[in-house]
Amino acid sequence: LSTPIDFYFDFSSPYGYFGAAMIEPIAARHGRTVRWHPILLGAVFKITGGAPFPTIPLKGEYANHDFARCARYYGLRFALPSKFPVATHNTARAFIWADDQNEPLAKQFALALYRAYFEEDVDISDTANVARIAASLGFDAKRLLAALSDLSLKERLRAQNEAAIARGVFGSPFFFVDGEPFWGSDRLPQIEKWLTEGGF
Amino acid sequence: LSTPIDFYFDFSSPYGYFGAAMIEPIAARHGRTVRWHPILLGAVFKITGGAPFPTIPLKGEYANHDFARCARYYGLRFALPSKFPVATHNTARAFIWADDQNEPLAKQFALALYRAYFEEDVDISDTANVARIAASLGFDAKRLLAALSDLSLKERLRAQNEAAIARGVFGSPFFFVDGEPFWGSDRLPQIEKWLTEGGF
Repeated sequence: LSTPIDFYFDFSSPYGYFGAAMIEPIAARHGRTVRWHPILLGAVFKITGGAPFPTIPLKGEYANHDFARCARYYGLRFALPSKFPVATHNTARAFIWADDQNEPLAKQFALALYRAYFEEDVDISDTANVARIAASLGFDAKRLLAALSDLSLKERLRAQNEAAIARGVFGSPFFFVDGEPFWGSDRLPQIEKWLTEGGF
Repeated sequence: LSTPIDFYFDFSSPYGYFGAAMIEPIAARHGRTVRWHPILLGAVFKITGGAPFPTIPLKGEYANHDFARCARYYGLRFALPSKFPVATHNTARAFIWADDQNEPLAKQFALALYRAYFEEDVDISDTANVARIAASLGFDAKRLLAALSDLSLKERLRAQNEAAIARGVFGSPFFFVDGEPFWGSDRLPQIEKWLTEGGF
């Protein structure tokens, strides 16, 4: 019995980007699939009283340093975007729309969005950029832009975000492996151990 | 040139306990020594607006689960103390006093305090317990208890805490390796990589 790994991420989260880049190979090595769930950390922070890591006194300077070092540790390119963090409502909605059509391609779309934002300083809160990246992967940019103003897509993201919070998700990345919650890209080694040993 | 690793920790911090248990073997494998610096997270939280992890909505339940899982991951015993967190002013002062006399033995004292608190549910905010544990390692319990009411020891902890904050320390454990800051026991693999490669 091989249940999928649930992966929650915010498109404006550097650690979410690292999680997105790393989780699929880990899952594949252990015969697992991954379900990707975009979330909005802003809604979470209203409950936890949290704030974006780089905006917190003392933590902010460390955060920007740690983002870059973690990227080197994972072997990923990274440059702090000039506009950071950004609102990711439309980015997350675009992913849901893409995921409806083609799940594997939607994951490639998510990674392309992350790379555009954290490698190329492309503002992924701008729907024109989101549509252009979608088109580069073969999605229909016009249909995507029309869908982004659709009320049902907004409602689906809101409902998915509430479901994530109800499940205990409070950060990005956040993973569930066989129901076990793991917060942070720094828990990937524990996820590997969990998958290898069937829990520990 | 082999500079010591600076290790900052709060005695009420489970992740600080994991850091304390793990850092010395890592340092030794790379020919490094470690300087131990007790801090008071309460003073840090006043600046960062933080709060003890287990008291935060959503995060609290995860925290208690993560403490236990991390302990299993590191091969350490762990049981959430019935009184948690506790004030660690006197515990930290006792460490400074012990460190003045015998640095290697003071580290054993710190580990014994951590184990008493996180394995045996001994309240280490109680100076009688701190003195008993000190005596078990050969320290003079009477002199320790007298020193704990000494103003100069209080002032030294306050000054050391301010120096730590001025250096950017905002959590437990917190490490500096060749000036490079690392927050969290989950950064130990990055510290290992840093020590192996001389930075990355």
